[in-house]
Amino acid sequence: MSLFSGLSAFPLTPLLDDAVDERAFAGIIERLADAGVDSITALGSTGSYAYLTVEERAQVAALAVEHAGDVPVFVGVGALRTSHVLANVERAEQAGARGLLLAPMTYQPLTHDDVFELFRSVAERTELPVIVYDNPGTTRFAFTVELYARIAELPGVSAIKIPGAPRDPVDARRHVDTIRAAVPERVTVGISGDAFAAAGLNAGCDSWYSVIGGTLPEPAVAITRAALGGRPHEATAESQRLAPLWALFAEFGGSVRVVAAIAEHLGLAREGCLPLPLRGLAREQRARVVETVTALGLV
Amino acid sequence: MSLFSGLSAFPLTPLLDDAVDERAFAGIIERLADAGVDSITALGSTGSYAYLTVEERAQVAALAVEHAGDVPVFVGVGALRTSHVLANVERAEQAGARGLLLAPMTYQPLTHDDVFELFRSVAERTELPVIVYDNPGTTRFAFTVELYARIAELPGVSAIKIPGAPRDPVDARRHVDTIRAAVPERVTVGISGDAFAAAGLNAGCDSWYSVIGGTLPEPAVAITRAALGGRPHEATAESQRLAPLWALFAEFGGSVRVVAAIAEHLGLAREGCLPLPLRGLAREQRARVVETVTALGLV
Repeated sequence: MSLFSGLSAFPLTPLLDDAVDERAFAGIIERLADAGVDSITALGSTGSYAYLTVEERAQVAALAVEHAGDVPVFVGVGALRTSHVLANVERAEQAGARGLLLAPMTYQPLTHDDVFELFRSVAERTELPVIVYDNPGTTRFAFTVELYARIAELPGVSAIKIPGAPRDPVDARRHVDTIRAAVPERVTVGISGDAFAAAGLNAGCDSWYSVIGGTLPEPAVAITRAALGGRPHEATAESQRLAPLWALFAEFGGSVRVVAAIAEHLGLAREGCLPLPLRGLAREQRARVVETVTALGLV
Repeated sequence: MSLFSGLSAFPLTPLLDDAVDERAFAGIIERLADAGVDSITALGSTGSYAYLTVEERAQVAALAVEHAGDVPVFVGVGALRTSHVLANVERAEQAGARGLLLAPMTYQPLTHDDVFELFRSVAERTELPVIVYDNPGTTRFAFTVELYARIAELPGVSAIKIPGAPRDPVDARRHVDTIRAAVPERVTVGISGDAFAAAGLNAGCDSWYSVIGGTLPEPAVAITRAALGGRPHEATAESQRLAPLWALFAEFGGSVRVVAAIAEHLGLAREGCLPLPLRGLAREQRARVVETVTALGLV
Protein backbone atom coordinates (compact mmCIF):
# COMPACT_ATOMS: atom_id res chain seq x y z
CA MET A 1 0.00 0.00 0.00
CA SER A 2 1.28 3.44 -0.93
CA LEU A 3 2.18 5.99 1.71
CA PHE A 4 -0.70 8.04 0.34
CA SER A 5 -3.40 5.36 0.51
CA GLY A 6 -6.07 4.78 3.09
CA LEU A 7 -7.21 7.12 5.82
CA SER A 8 -5.24 10.25 6.58
CA ALA A 9 -6.57 11.84 9.73
CA PHE A 10 -6.50 15.63 10.11
CA PRO A 11 -6.14 16.59 13.78
CA LEU A 12 -7.05 19.93 15.25
CA THR A 13 -4.21 22.03 16.66
CA PRO A 14 -5.88 23.07 19.91
CA LEU A 15 -4.82 26.39 21.41
CA LEU A 16 -4.86 27.46 25.01
CA ASP A 17 -4.33 31.14 25.81
CA ASP A 18 -3.31 31.76 22.19
CA ALA A 19 -0.48 29.19 22.27
CA VAL A 20 -0.35 25.60 21.07
CA ASP A 21 -1.83 23.33 23.77
CA GLU A 22 0.95 20.77 23.58
CA ARG A 23 -0.59 18.26 25.97
CA ALA A 24 -3.95 18.30 24.24
CA PHE A 25 -2.35 17.99 20.81
CA ALA A 26 -0.16 15.09 21.90
CA GLY A 27 -3.23 13.34 23.28
CA ILE A 28 -5.10 13.74 20.01
CA ILE A 29 -2.18 12.34 18.03
CA GLU A 30 -1.86 9.31 20.30
CA ARG A 31 -5.58 8.68 20.02
CA LEU A 32 -5.29 8.65 16.22
CA ALA A 33 -2.32 6.29 16.22
CA ASP A 34 -4.17 3.95 18.59
CA ALA A 35 -7.20 3.93 16.30
CA GLY A 36 -5.14 2.60 13.41
CA VAL A 37 -5.33 5.44 10.94
CA ASP A 38 -2.99 5.03 7.97
CA SER A 39 -1.42 8.45 8.28
CA ILE A 40 -1.81 11.70 10.14
CA THR A 41 -1.77 15.05 8.41
CA ALA A 42 -0.82 17.69 10.93
CA LEU A 43 -1.43 21.33 10.11
CA GLY A 44 -4.16 20.84 7.57
CA SER A 45 -6.98 23.36 7.42
CA THR A 46 -8.49 21.57 10.41
CA GLY A 47 -5.13 21.98 12.13
CA SER A 48 -5.28 25.78 11.69
CA TYR A 49 -2.00 25.92 9.77
CA ALA A 50 -2.95 29.24 8.21
CA TYR A 51 -3.11 30.94 11.60
CA LEU A 52 0.15 29.75 13.13
CA THR A 53 3.67 31.14 12.97
CA VAL A 54 6.59 29.28 11.41
CA GLU A 55 7.84 28.53 14.93
CA GLU A 56 4.50 27.20 16.15
CA ARG A 57 4.25 25.06 13.04
CA ALA A 58 7.70 23.58 13.67
CA GLN A 59 6.62 22.83 17.24
CA VAL A 60 3.41 21.13 16.07
CA ALA A 61 5.21 19.10 13.40
CA ALA A 62 7.74 17.83 15.92
CA LEU A 63 5.03 16.92 18.45
CA ALA A 64 3.03 15.07 15.82
CA VAL A 65 6.00 12.94 14.77
CA GLU A 66 6.97 12.32 18.37
CA HIS A 67 3.52 11.04 19.38
CA ALA A 68 2.45 9.23 16.21
CA GLY A 69 4.51 6.10 16.82
CA ASP A 70 4.85 4.21 13.54
CA VAL A 71 2.12 6.16 11.79
CA PRO A 72 3.56 8.40 9.07
CA VAL A 73 2.99 12.10 9.58
CA PHE A 74 2.41 14.57 6.78
CA VAL A 75 2.72 18.27 7.49
CA GLY A 76 0.93 21.21 5.92
CA VAL A 77 3.39 23.82 4.68
CA GLY A 78 1.13 26.31 2.89
CA ALA A 79 1.47 30.04 3.51
CA LEU A 80 0.65 33.21 1.64
CA ARG A 81 4.28 33.91 0.72
CA THR A 82 6.56 31.46 -1.06
CA SER A 83 9.53 32.17 1.20
CA HIS A 84 7.38 31.33 4.24
CA VAL A 85 6.30 28.09 2.57
CA LEU A 86 9.95 27.17 2.07
CA ALA A 87 10.71 27.95 5.72
CA ASN A 88 7.87 25.61 6.71
CA VAL A 89 9.24 22.94 4.38
CA GLU A 90 12.62 23.09 6.08
CA ARG A 91 11.10 22.85 9.55
CA ALA A 92 8.83 19.96 8.52
CA GLU A 93 11.83 18.07 7.16
CA GLN A 94 13.70 18.66 10.42
CA ALA A 95 10.70 17.40 12.38
CA GLY A 96 10.66 14.12 10.52
CA ALA A 97 7.63 14.59 8.30
CA ARG A 98 7.12 11.84 5.71
CA GLY A 99 5.27 14.10 3.29
CA LEU A 100 4.17 17.69 2.76
CA LEU A 101 0.69 19.04 2.13
CA LEU A 102 0.67 22.24 0.11
CA ALA A 103 -2.36 24.45 -0.49
CA PRO A 104 -2.13 27.63 -2.56
CA MET A 105 -3.32 30.13 0.03
CA THR A 106 -4.54 33.34 -1.51
CA TYR A 107 -5.03 36.95 -0.60
CA GLN A 108 -4.57 38.50 -4.02
CA PRO A 109 -6.07 35.99 -6.46
CA LEU A 110 -3.41 33.70 -7.95
CA THR A 111 -2.93 32.74 -11.57
CA HIS A 112 -2.26 29.17 -12.69
CA ASP A 113 1.33 30.16 -13.40
CA ASP A 114 1.73 31.56 -9.87
CA VAL A 115 0.52 28.28 -8.40
CA PHE A 116 2.58 26.10 -10.70
CA GLU A 117 5.74 28.05 -9.82
CA LEU A 118 4.92 27.78 -6.12
CA PHE A 119 4.75 24.00 -6.40
CA ARG A 120 7.91 24.00 -8.49
CA SER A 121 9.76 26.02 -5.85
CA VAL A 122 8.79 23.51 -3.19
CA ALA A 123 9.47 20.42 -5.29
CA GLU A 124 12.94 21.74 -6.11
CA ARG A 125 13.74 22.38 -2.46
CA THR A 126 12.76 19.07 -0.87
CA GLU A 127 13.14 15.32 -1.23
CA LEU A 128 9.84 14.77 0.56
CA PRO A 129 6.77 13.81 -1.43
CA VAL A 130 4.24 16.59 -1.89
CA ILE A 131 0.45 16.37 -1.72
CA VAL A 132 -1.39 18.94 -3.84
CA TYR A 133 -4.04 20.37 -1.55
CA ASP A 134 -7.09 21.54 -3.49
CA ASN A 135 -9.44 23.17 -0.99
CA PRO A 136 -11.22 26.08 -2.65
CA GLY A 137 -13.55 26.63 0.32
CA THR A 138 -10.63 28.05 2.27
CA THR A 139 -8.01 28.95 -0.35
CA ARG A 140 -10.45 30.39 -2.89
CA PHE A 141 -8.20 29.03 -5.60
CA ALA A 142 -9.81 26.84 -8.25
CA PHE A 143 -7.64 24.12 -9.74
CA THR A 144 -8.41 22.60 -13.11
CA VAL A 145 -7.53 19.10 -14.28
CA GLU A 146 -5.03 20.73 -16.64
CA LEU A 147 -3.29 22.40 -13.72
CA TYR A 148 -3.28 19.12 -11.73
CA ALA A 149 -1.58 17.52 -14.72
CA ARG A 150 1.01 20.27 -15.04
CA ILE A 151 1.89 20.18 -11.35
CA ALA A 152 1.84 16.37 -11.19
CA GLU A 153 4.67 16.28 -13.73
CA LEU A 154 6.97 17.82 -11.12
CA PRO A 155 9.14 15.14 -9.55
CA GLY A 156 8.15 14.65 -5.94
CA VAL A 157 4.49 15.47 -6.42
CA SER A 158 2.89 12.25 -5.21
CA ALA A 159 -0.75 12.86 -4.41
CA ILE A 160 -3.68 15.13 -5.08
CA LYS A 161 -6.34 15.88 -2.51
CA ILE A 162 -9.54 16.72 -4.35
CA PRO A 163 -12.44 18.65 -2.81
CA GLY A 164 -15.41 16.32 -2.99
CA ALA A 165 -16.77 14.44 -5.95
CA PRO A 166 -20.08 14.27 -7.79
CA ARG A 167 -22.87 12.57 -5.81
CA ASP A 168 -23.80 10.25 -8.63
CA PRO A 169 -21.55 7.15 -8.61
CA VAL A 170 -21.12 7.10 -12.39
CA ASP A 171 -20.23 10.80 -12.48
CA ALA A 172 -17.92 10.36 -9.51
CA ARG A 173 -16.09 7.49 -11.21
CA ARG A 174 -15.79 9.52 -14.42
CA HIS A 175 -14.41 12.49 -12.46
CA VAL A 176 -11.78 10.40 -10.68
CA ASP A 177 -10.89 8.59 -13.91
CA THR A 178 -10.42 11.91 -15.69
CA ILE A 179 -7.96 13.09 -13.06
CA ARG A 180 -6.13 9.74 -13.07
CA ALA A 181 -5.80 9.80 -16.83
CA ALA A 182 -4.24 13.26 -16.65
CA VAL A 183 -1.54 12.52 -14.07
CA PRO A 184 1.35 10.04 -13.85
CA GLU A 185 0.56 6.64 -12.36
CA ARG A 186 2.69 7.32 -9.28
CA VAL A 187 0.30 10.11 -8.23
CA THR A 188 -2.52 9.00 -5.93
CA VAL A 189 -5.89 10.72 -5.79
CA GLY A 190 -7.52 11.31 -2.42
CA ILE A 191 -10.95 12.59 -1.52
CA SER A 192 -11.76 15.26 1.02
CA GLY A 193 -15.01 16.76 2.22
CA ASP A 194 -16.14 14.09 4.68
CA ALA A 195 -19.66 13.86 3.32
CA PHE A 196 -18.20 12.80 -0.05
CA ALA A 197 -15.66 10.34 1.29
CA ALA A 198 -17.52 7.06 0.80
CA ALA A 199 -18.58 8.13 -2.68
CA GLY A 200 -15.05 9.19 -3.53
CA LEU A 201 -13.43 6.01 -2.24
CA ASN A 202 -16.05 3.88 -3.98
CA ALA A 203 -15.32 5.81 -7.18
CA GLY A 204 -11.68 4.78 -7.03
CA CYS A 205 -9.93 7.30 -4.83
CA ASP A 206 -6.88 5.88 -3.07
CA SER A 207 -7.31 7.79 0.14
CA TRP A 208 -9.51 9.94 2.32
CA TYR A 209 -8.09 13.12 3.82
CA SER A 210 -10.49 13.24 6.69
CA VAL A 211 -11.56 15.97 9.10
CA ILE A 212 -13.75 13.72 11.24
CA GLY A 213 -10.99 11.12 11.24
CA GLY A 214 -8.82 13.56 13.14
CA THR A 215 -11.21 13.74 16.08
CA LEU A 216 -13.43 10.62 15.82
CA PRO A 217 -11.18 8.17 13.98
CA GLU A 218 -13.22 4.96 14.40
CA PRO A 219 -16.07 5.65 11.96
CA ALA A 220 -13.59 7.06 9.44
CA VAL A 221 -11.45 3.93 9.72
CA ALA A 222 -14.58 1.79 9.25
CA ILE A 223 -15.70 3.65 6.12
CA THR A 224 -12.22 3.54 4.63
CA ARG A 225 -11.69 -0.17 5.34
CA ALA A 226 -15.09 -1.02 3.88
CA ALA A 227 -14.60 1.01 0.71
CA LEU A 228 -11.02 -0.05 0.04
CA GLY A 229 -11.83 -3.65 1.08
CA GLY A 230 -14.37 -4.08 -1.69
CA ARG A 231 -17.48 -3.52 0.43
CA PRO A 232 -18.79 -0.31 -1.15
CA HIS A 233 -22.34 -0.68 0.16
CA GLU A 234 -21.08 -0.95 3.72
CA ALA A 235 -19.06 2.25 3.24
CA THR A 236 -22.05 4.04 1.77
CA ALA A 237 -24.36 2.84 4.51
CA GLU A 238 -22.04 4.03 7.27
CA SER A 239 -21.59 7.40 5.56
CA GLN A 240 -25.35 7.74 5.19
CA ARG A 241 -25.80 6.88 8.83
CA LEU A 242 -23.55 9.85 9.64
CA ALA A 243 -25.58 12.22 7.45
CA PRO A 244 -26.83 14.22 10.47
CA LEU A 245 -23.21 15.06 11.28
CA TRP A 246 -22.40 16.04 7.69
CA ALA A 247 -25.51 18.23 7.78
CA LEU A 248 -24.13 20.11 10.80
CA PHE A 249 -20.85 20.70 8.94
CA ALA A 250 -22.86 22.40 6.22
CA GLU A 251 -25.23 24.26 8.52
CA PHE A 252 -22.52 25.61 10.83
CA GLY A 253 -20.33 26.98 8.06
CA GLY A 254 -17.75 24.22 7.76
CA SER A 255 -16.38 21.29 9.65
CA VAL A 256 -13.71 22.87 11.83
CA ARG A 257 -16.00 24.54 14.36
CA VAL A 258 -18.02 21.34 14.66
CA VAL A 259 -15.03 19.06 15.29
CA ALA A 260 -13.62 21.64 17.72
CA ALA A 261 -16.90 21.43 19.66
CA ILE A 262 -16.70 17.62 19.63
CA ALA A 263 -13.08 17.67 20.81
CA GLU A 264 -13.94 20.14 23.56
CA HIS A 265 -16.92 17.98 24.60
CA LEU A 266 -14.68 14.92 24.79
CA GLY A 267 -12.07 16.76 26.83
CA LEU A 268 -9.52 16.45 24.01
CA ALA A 269 -9.19 20.24 23.92
CA ARG A 270 -10.07 23.12 26.19
CA GLU A 271 -13.01 25.34 25.34
CA GLY A 272 -12.09 28.03 22.83
CA CYS A 273 -9.44 25.88 21.16
CA LEU A 274 -9.59 27.60 17.77
CA PRO A 275 -7.45 30.64 16.98
CA LEU A 276 -9.34 33.91 17.29
CA PRO A 277 -11.07 35.51 15.43
CA LEU A 278 -12.60 32.02 14.91
CA ARG A 279 -15.06 31.74 17.75
CA GLY A 280 -16.42 28.41 18.75
CA LEU A 281 -20.02 27.47 18.13
CA ALA A 282 -22.68 29.15 20.18
CA ARG A 283 -24.14 27.29 23.17
CA GLU A 284 -27.24 26.07 21.30
CA GLN A 285 -25.14 24.95 18.35
CA ARG A 286 -22.81 23.02 20.63
CA ALA A 287 -25.77 21.34 22.26
CA ARG A 288 -27.00 20.18 18.87
CA VAL A 289 -23.57 18.84 17.97
CA VAL A 290 -23.31 16.89 21.22
CA GLU A 291 -26.85 15.58 20.82
CA THR A 292 -26.11 14.46 17.27
CA VAL A 293 -22.83 12.65 17.94
CA THR A 294 -24.32 11.08 21.05
CA ALA A 295 -27.37 9.82 19.15
CA LEU A 296 -25.04 8.39 16.49
CA GLY A 297 -23.09 6.54 19.16
CA LEU A 298 -19.88 8.37 18.25
CA VAL A 299 -19.01 9.60 21.74
CA MET B 1 -11.69 68.61 6.74
CA SER B 2 -11.72 65.30 8.59
CA LEU B 3 -8.62 63.15 8.79
CA PHE B 4 -10.56 60.62 6.74
CA SER B 5 -11.61 62.93 3.90
CA GLY B 6 -10.13 63.39 0.48
CA LEU B 7 -7.61 61.20 -1.29
CA SER B 8 -5.85 58.44 0.63
CA ALA B 9 -3.10 56.99 -1.53
CA PHE B 10 -2.23 53.30 -1.22
CA PRO B 11 1.46 52.75 -2.01
CA LEU B 12 3.00 49.45 -3.04
CA THR B 13 5.49 47.90 -0.65
CA PRO B 14 8.16 46.95 -3.19
CA LEU B 15 10.33 43.97 -2.38
CA LEU B 16 13.87 43.25 -3.51
CA ASP B 17 15.26 39.76 -2.92
CA ASP B 18 12.27 38.94 -0.71
CA ALA B 19 12.90 41.84 1.67
CA VAL B 20 11.35 45.30 1.85
CA ASP B 21 13.09 47.60 -0.63
CA GLU B 22 13.47 50.48 1.79
CA ARG B 23 14.89 52.96 -0.68
CA ALA B 24 12.20 52.31 -3.25
CA PHE B 25 9.45 52.53 -0.64
CA ALA B 26 10.78 55.78 0.78
CA GLY B 27 10.89 57.21 -2.73
CA ILE B 28 7.27 56.27 -3.37
CA ILE B 29 6.14 57.86 -0.10
CA GLU B 30 7.99 61.10 -0.83
CA ARG B 31 6.45 61.21 -4.29
CA LEU B 32 2.96 60.92 -2.78
CA ALA B 33 3.60 63.63 -0.20
CA ASP B 34 4.93 65.92 -2.93
CA ALA B 35 1.83 65.33 -5.03
CA GLY B 36 -0.42 66.65 -2.28
CA VAL B 37 -2.42 63.57 -1.36
CA ASP B 38 -4.52 64.02 1.78
CA SER B 39 -3.29 60.87 3.47
CA ILE B 40 -1.22 57.79 2.79
CA THR B 41 -2.40 54.32 3.73
CA ALA B 42 0.64 52.09 4.03
CA LEU B 43 0.15 48.34 4.07
CA GLY B 44 -3.17 48.23 2.32
CA SER B 45 -3.87 45.35 -0.05
CA THR B 46 -1.78 47.19 -2.63
CA GLY B 47 0.96 47.40 -0.02
CA SER B 48 1.00 43.59 0.35
CA TYR B 49 0.26 43.70 4.08
CA ALA B 50 -1.07 40.14 4.04
CA TYR B 51 2.29 38.78 2.91
CA LEU B 52 4.60 40.52 5.35
CA THR B 53 5.75 39.60 8.85
CA VAL B 54 4.96 41.67 11.92
CA GLU B 55 8.57 42.90 11.87
CA GLU B 56 8.47 43.89 8.20
CA ARG B 57 5.22 45.67 8.78
CA ALA B 58 6.68 47.66 11.67
CA GLN B 59 9.60 48.58 9.41
CA VAL B 60 7.24 49.73 6.62
CA ALA B 61 5.04 51.72 9.00
CA ALA B 62 8.06 53.54 10.42
CA LEU B 63 9.45 54.32 6.96
CA ALA B 64 6.09 55.64 5.78
CA VAL B 65 5.76 58.02 8.71
CA GLU B 66 9.37 59.11 8.36
CA HIS B 67 9.06 60.02 4.68
CA ALA B 68 5.50 61.36 4.55
CA GLY B 69 6.32 64.77 5.99
CA ASP B 70 3.09 66.38 7.21
CA VAL B 71 0.84 63.93 5.42
CA PRO B 72 -0.97 61.65 7.89
CA VAL B 73 -0.18 57.97 7.53
CA PHE B 74 -2.67 55.20 8.15
CA VAL B 75 -1.41 51.66 8.55
CA GLY B 76 -3.07 48.36 7.66
CA VAL B 77 -3.09 46.00 10.64
CA GLY B 78 -5.15 43.07 9.34
CA ALA B 79 -3.97 39.49 9.81
CA LEU B 80 -5.57 36.08 9.95
CA ARG B 81 -5.19 35.80 13.73
CA THR B 82 -6.45 38.34 16.24
CA SER B 83 -3.29 38.24 18.34
CA HIS B 84 -1.24 39.06 15.24
CA VAL B 85 -3.56 41.97 14.46
CA LEU B 86 -3.00 43.31 17.97
CA ALA B 87 0.76 42.99 17.55
CA ASN B 88 0.49 45.02 14.34
CA VAL B 89 -1.62 47.62 16.14
CA GLU B 90 1.05 48.09 18.77
CA ARG B 91 3.80 48.44 16.17
CA ALA B 92 1.73 50.88 14.10
CA GLU B 93 1.17 53.03 17.19
CA GLN B 94 4.90 52.99 17.92
CA ALA B 95 5.62 54.03 14.34
CA GLY B 96 3.42 57.10 14.61
CA ALA B 97 0.43 56.02 12.54
CA ARG B 98 -2.53 58.41 12.67
CA GLY B 99 -5.09 55.71 11.93
CA LEU B 100 -5.46 51.97 11.41
CA LEU B 101 -6.97 50.12 8.49
CA LEU B 102 -8.45 46.77 9.44
CA ALA B 103 -9.68 44.13 7.01
CA PRO B 104 -11.13 40.83 8.21
CA MET B 105 -8.73 38.46 6.48
CA THR B 106 -10.14 34.98 6.14
CA TYR B 107 -8.98 31.43 5.73
CA GLN B 108 -11.84 29.64 7.42
CA PRO B 109 -14.94 31.69 6.59
CA LEU B 110 -15.79 34.16 9.36
CA THR B 111 -19.17 34.83 10.92
CA HIS B 112 -20.48 38.33 11.58
CA ASP B 113 -19.87 37.77 15.29
CA ASP B 114 -16.24 36.78 14.63
CA VAL B 115 -15.68 39.99 12.69
CA PHE B 116 -17.47 42.20 15.19
CA GLU B 117 -15.39 40.78 18.04
CA LEU B 118 -12.21 41.28 16.02
CA PHE B 119 -13.04 44.97 15.60
CA ARG B 120 -13.98 45.19 19.26
CA SER B 121 -10.66 43.69 20.32
CA VAL B 122 -8.79 46.28 18.29
CA ALA B 123 -10.97 49.22 19.34
CA GLU B 124 -10.46 48.31 22.99
CA ARG B 125 -6.70 48.12 22.58
CA THR B 126 -5.94 51.41 20.82
CA GLU B 127 -6.67 55.12 20.94
CA LEU B 128 -6.10 55.40 17.20
CA PRO B 129 -9.09 55.75 14.89
CA VAL B 130 -9.95 52.63 12.92
CA ILE B 131 -11.01 52.37 9.29
CA VAL B 132 -13.26 49.38 8.51
CA TYR B 133 -11.76 47.84 5.39
CA ASP B 134 -14.38 46.09 3.28
CA ASN B 135 -12.56 44.41 0.40
CA PRO B 136 -14.31 41.15 -0.44
CA GLY B 137 -12.19 40.59 -3.56
CA THR B 138 -9.25 39.75 -1.33
CA THR B 139 -10.75 38.95 2.08
CA ARG B 140 -13.73 36.98 0.78
CA PHE B 141 -15.73 38.36 3.66
CA ALA B 142 -19.02 40.05 2.80
CA PHE B 143 -20.09 42.88 5.08
CA THR B 144 -23.69 43.97 5.33
CA VAL B 145 -24.98 47.43 6.21
CA GLU B 146 -26.20 45.92 9.49
CA LEU B 147 -22.67 44.79 10.32
CA TYR B 148 -21.24 48.21 9.36
CA ALA B 149 -23.72 49.72 11.80
CA ARG B 150 -22.84 47.34 14.60
CA ILE B 151 -19.09 47.90 14.19
CA ALA B 152 -19.47 51.65 13.73
CA GLU B 153 -20.98 51.88 17.22
CA LEU B 154 -17.59 50.92 18.66
CA PRO B 155 -15.77 53.99 19.93
CA GLY B 156 -12.76 54.67 17.74
CA VAL B 157 -14.27 53.34 14.54
CA SER B 158 -14.05 56.41 12.36
CA ALA B 159 -14.39 55.41 8.73
CA ILE B 160 -15.66 52.72 6.40
CA LYS B 161 -13.98 51.89 3.13
CA ILE B 162 -16.62 50.45 0.81
CA PRO B 163 -15.84 48.31 -2.24
CA GLY B 164 -17.24 50.20 -5.19
CA ALA B 165 -20.71 51.60 -5.68
CA PRO B 166 -23.52 51.15 -8.20
CA ARG B 167 -22.77 52.66 -11.63
CA ASP B 168 -26.03 54.55 -11.79
CA PRO B 169 -25.70 57.91 -9.97
CA VAL B 170 -29.12 57.66 -8.32
CA ASP B 171 -28.44 54.12 -7.11
CA ALA B 172 -24.97 55.14 -5.95
CA ARG B 173 -26.35 58.05 -3.94
CA ARG B 174 -28.99 55.78 -2.41
CA HIS B 175 -26.34 53.21 -1.49
CA VAL B 176 -24.10 55.79 0.20
CA ASP B 177 -27.10 57.40 1.94
CA THR B 178 -28.18 54.00 3.28
CA ILE B 179 -24.78 53.43 4.84
CA ARG B 180 -24.63 56.96 6.26
CA ALA B 181 -28.06 56.60 7.80
CA ALA B 182 -26.94 53.40 9.53
CA VAL B 183 -23.75 54.72 11.15
CA PRO B 184 -22.96 57.59 13.55
CA GLU B 185 -22.27 60.97 11.99
CA ARG B 186 -18.60 60.88 13.03
CA VAL B 187 -18.01 57.90 10.71
CA THR B 188 -16.90 58.84 7.20
CA VAL B 189 -17.62 56.71 4.15
CA GLY B 190 -14.89 56.23 1.56
CA ILE B 191 -14.95 54.60 -1.84
CA SER B 192 -12.47 52.10 -3.20
CA GLY B 193 -12.19 50.32 -6.49
CA ASP B 194 -10.58 53.02 -8.61
CA ALA B 195 -13.02 52.67 -11.50
CA PHE B 196 -15.85 53.59 -9.12
CA ALA B 197 -14.11 56.47 -7.41
CA ALA B 198 -15.59 59.42 -9.29
CA ALA B 199 -19.06 57.89 -9.04
CA GLY B 200 -18.61 57.23 -5.34
CA LEU B 201 -17.30 60.70 -4.56
CA ASN B 202 -20.04 62.31 -6.64
CA ALA B 203 -22.55 60.19 -4.71
CA GLY B 204 -21.42 61.70 -1.44
CA CYS B 205 -18.44 59.64 -0.27
CA ASP B 206 -16.01 61.62 1.86
CA SER B 207 -12.88 59.98 0.58
CA TRP B 208 -11.26 57.76 -2.01
CA TYR B 209 -8.96 54.96 -0.87
CA SER B 210 -7.00 54.80 -4.07
CA VAL B 211 -4.74 52.19 -5.63
CA ILE B 212 -3.70 54.32 -8.58
CA GLY B 213 -3.19 57.26 -6.23
CA GLY B 214 -0.38 55.31 -4.59
CA THR B 215 1.64 55.10 -7.80
CA LEU B 216 0.27 57.85 -10.09
CA PRO B 217 -1.06 60.40 -7.63
CA GLU B 218 -1.75 63.35 -9.96
CA PRO B 219 -4.84 62.04 -11.77
CA ALA B 220 -6.23 60.75 -8.46
CA VAL B 221 -5.71 64.16 -6.84
CA ALA B 222 -7.42 65.79 -9.82
CA ILE B 223 -10.48 63.52 -9.67
CA THR B 224 -10.79 63.95 -5.91
CA ARG B 225 -10.44 67.75 -6.01
CA ALA B 226 -13.01 68.00 -8.81
CA ALA B 227 -15.57 65.77 -7.10
CA LEU B 228 -15.20 67.24 -3.61
CA GLY B 229 -14.95 70.76 -5.06
CA GLY B 230 -18.42 70.60 -6.58
CA ARG B 231 -17.34 69.83 -10.14
CA PRO B 232 -18.81 66.33 -10.55
CA HIS B 233 -18.76 66.36 -14.34
CA GLU B 234 -15.06 67.12 -14.37
CA ALA B 235 -14.43 64.19 -12.01
CA THR B 236 -16.54 61.89 -14.16
CA ALA B 237 -14.86 63.01 -17.36
CA GLU B 238 -11.36 62.42 -15.98
CA SER B 239 -12.37 58.99 -14.67
CA GLN B 240 -13.88 58.12 -18.04
CA ARG B 241 -10.72 59.26 -19.76
CA LEU B 242 -8.85 56.70 -17.62
CA ALA B 243 -11.23 53.88 -18.59
CA PRO B 244 -8.53 52.03 -20.57
CA LEU B 245 -6.51 51.76 -17.36
CA TRP B 246 -9.49 50.55 -15.30
CA ALA B 247 -10.09 47.99 -18.07
CA LEU B 248 -6.57 46.62 -17.59
CA PHE B 249 -7.20 46.29 -13.83
CA ALA B 250 -10.17 44.08 -14.66
CA GLU B 251 -8.51 42.16 -17.47
CA PHE B 252 -5.30 41.40 -15.55
CA GLY B 253 -7.03 40.07 -12.45
CA GLY B 254 -6.87 43.12 -10.19
CA SER B 255 -5.04 46.37 -9.81
CA VAL B 256 -1.94 45.36 -7.88
CA ARG B 257 -0.07 43.66 -10.71
CA VAL B 258 -0.86 46.57 -13.02
CA VAL B 259 0.38 49.25 -10.62
CA ALA B 260 3.45 47.15 -9.86
CA ALA B 261 4.20 47.09 -13.60
CA ILE B 262 3.74 50.87 -13.77
CA ALA B 263 6.00 51.41 -10.75
CA GLU B 264 8.63 49.13 -12.24
CA HIS B 265 8.39 50.96 -15.58
CA LEU B 266 8.87 54.30 -13.82
CA GLY B 267 11.85 53.01 -11.87
CA LEU B 268 9.97 53.39 -8.58
CA ALA B 269 10.50 49.70 -7.88
CA ARG B 270 12.72 46.94 -9.20
CA GLU B 271 11.30 44.29 -11.46
CA GLY B 272 9.59 41.51 -9.51
CA CYS B 273 8.58 43.83 -6.67
CA LEU B 274 5.57 41.79 -5.53
CA PRO B 275 5.91 39.00 -2.98
CA LEU B 276 6.05 35.55 -4.55
CA PRO B 277 3.95 33.58 -5.40
CA LEU B 278 2.52 36.76 -7.00
CA ARG B 279 4.36 36.98 -10.26
CA GLY B 280 4.43 40.18 -12.18
CA LEU B 281 2.59 40.58 -15.45
CA ALA B 282 3.91 38.76 -18.48
CA ARG B 283 5.99 40.68 -21.00
CA GLU B 284 3.10 41.31 -23.41
CA GLN B 285 0.84 42.41 -20.58
CA ARG B 286 3.46 44.85 -19.33
CA ALA B 287 3.83 46.26 -22.79
CA ARG B 288 0.10 46.92 -22.95
CA VAL B 289 0.16 48.62 -19.55
CA VAL B 290 3.03 50.88 -20.57
CA GLU B 291 1.37 51.67 -23.88
CA THR B 292 -1.89 52.52 -22.12
CA VAL B 293 -0.45 54.81 -19.43
CA THR B 294 1.78 56.47 -22.02
CA ALA B 295 -1.13 57.12 -24.36
CA LEU B 296 -3.08 58.59 -21.43
CA GLY B 297 -0.19 60.93 -20.64
CA LEU B 298 0.20 59.46 -17.17
CA VAL B 299 3.91 58.70 -17.39
